[in-house]
Amino acid sequence: MSEEPKGPDVDRPGRAATVSRRTFLGGAVVGGVAVAVGLAAWLVRKAPQPSQKGTEMSARLFTFLGGEEGTWAVVESRTIAGEPLPEVKRLNVVSGAVSGLPGGATWLLRGVTSNERYVTRAEKDQLVAKQQGLSRPEATCAALIPIRKTAKWWGLTQDERRKVLEERSRHIEIGLKYLPAIARRLHHCRDLGESEPFDFLTWFEFAKADSGAFDELVAKLRASEEWKYVDREIDVRLVRDGA
Amino acid sequence: MSEEPKGPDVDRPGRAATVSRRTFLGGAVVGGVAVAVGLAAWLVRKAPQPSQKGTEMSARLFTFLGGEEGTWAVVESRTIAGEPLPEVKRLNVVSGAVSGLPGGATWLLRGVTSNERYVTRAEKDQLVAKQQGLSRPEATCAALIPIRKTAKWWGLTQDERRKVLEERSRHIEIGLKYLPAIARRLHHCRDLGESEPFDFLTWFEFAKADSGAFDELVAKLRASEEWKYVDREIDVRLVRDGA
Repeated sequence: MSEEPKGPDVDRPGRAATVSRRTFLGGAVVGGVAVAVGLAAWLVRKAPQPSQKGTEMSARLFTFLGGEEGTWAVVESRTIAGEPLPEVKRLNVVSGAVSGLPGGATWLLRGVTSNERYVTRAEKDQLVAKQQGLSRPEATCAALIPIRKTAKWWGLTQDERRKVLEERSRHIEIGLKYLPAIARRLHHCRDLGESEPFDFLTWFEFAKADSGAFDELVAKLRASEEWKYVDREIDVRLVRDGA
Repeated sequence: MSEEPKGPDVDRPGRAATVSRRTFLGGAVVGGVAVAVGLAAWLVRKAPQPSQKGTEMSARLFTFLGGEEGTWAVVESRTIAGEPLPEVKRLNVVSGAVSGLPGGATWLLRGVTSNERYVTRAEKDQLVAKQQGLSRPEATCAALIPIRKTAKWWGLTQDERRKVLEERSRHIEIGLKYLPAIARRLHHCRDLGESEPFDFLTWFEFAKADSGAFDELVAKLRASEEWKYVDREIDVRLVRDGA
């Protein structure tokens, strides 16, 4: 291969930075598979990041806790396809990772916001122009819809998935029609680890007056060709405390 | 929203399955953030999966351990961009998660194989027809090249990323020219958690006689427009024990 000495490439000193060896070393193995996986992941995640990427990235993970506590009250939970989720009374949406399963929680689901996989620049520009953020005071209703797609979907190539999703199912075009009333955030789970129970956690917020429009939106998507590739879907409807 | 009673949708009983509440409950919090994150993730991951997805998914995570031990000996390690990785003598590639940081390991990197994000069906068919699997007896040389791309890259839309990657940089076309000599596997890290140190771990295996071809391949890619979006890259060259 090469007889050059090992070491950082000194051709681009401006791009090199020192790294603390300590961040990669140490950390006792606490024992137990689950614990160890968390620890190993942590060692790498704690590696220093140049630029502000660490900050940017830490805002991408969200945890949804279903149980007895939380700012959102469950008003209905329907299993659309596949296995149900245990029923819960309330839901909390937490930015970042959660320590264990907090008191009162029956389950937790996690996902990361990520780069968009299908929208074109023209579509993105329309979305950005029309969409509203989460946490609007009037948006007292929400829906958490975890979704899993089939192995057949994931075996399609990018152009095939785009064709099903937009050219044949009009997923993006349909979604655009319900902006700005329906605010949303998509969380990816499929690549979080080895076997997450869902591929996506979709989250929507809207005013009570727009509940019918939201029902229409999800009905249109469920009737589309894309939904033939959905094999697990739970539709959890929520209202905010005091609403 | 609705006055229907809560509960699984009975319209599609054939698709519903029972879920053990126990899998979502219990599990003492062991304490410590890293430990707790691992535990929480485990609770969800252990949820029963219909079909054989659990099995399929468990084969997607790979761990690369750099240290004093391993089947691959490091012959050269160059920092192409960004922070270096601590130098190590050997590397082990492990299927699945690893318990803690095993003896002799200085660092670990993890990634999951996933659906392809850019190839079209026509390109995929060519790749499948030409490519060879890993672990060929004659492939005694390998390269681990962890890569991180800039925030600007991730802010591009799908069509813009495809244009840079293939229409302007010929990434897929260039790769195809070096098949079947160079076998490869792409691991995604960006969505593994909150702040992985790299976005991708690229892994290549080839015979000693194809080392020059491999150097040519990476040189072509590094000269492409796509590489303007790479802000951290380490090139670790390896030979297999006894080779």
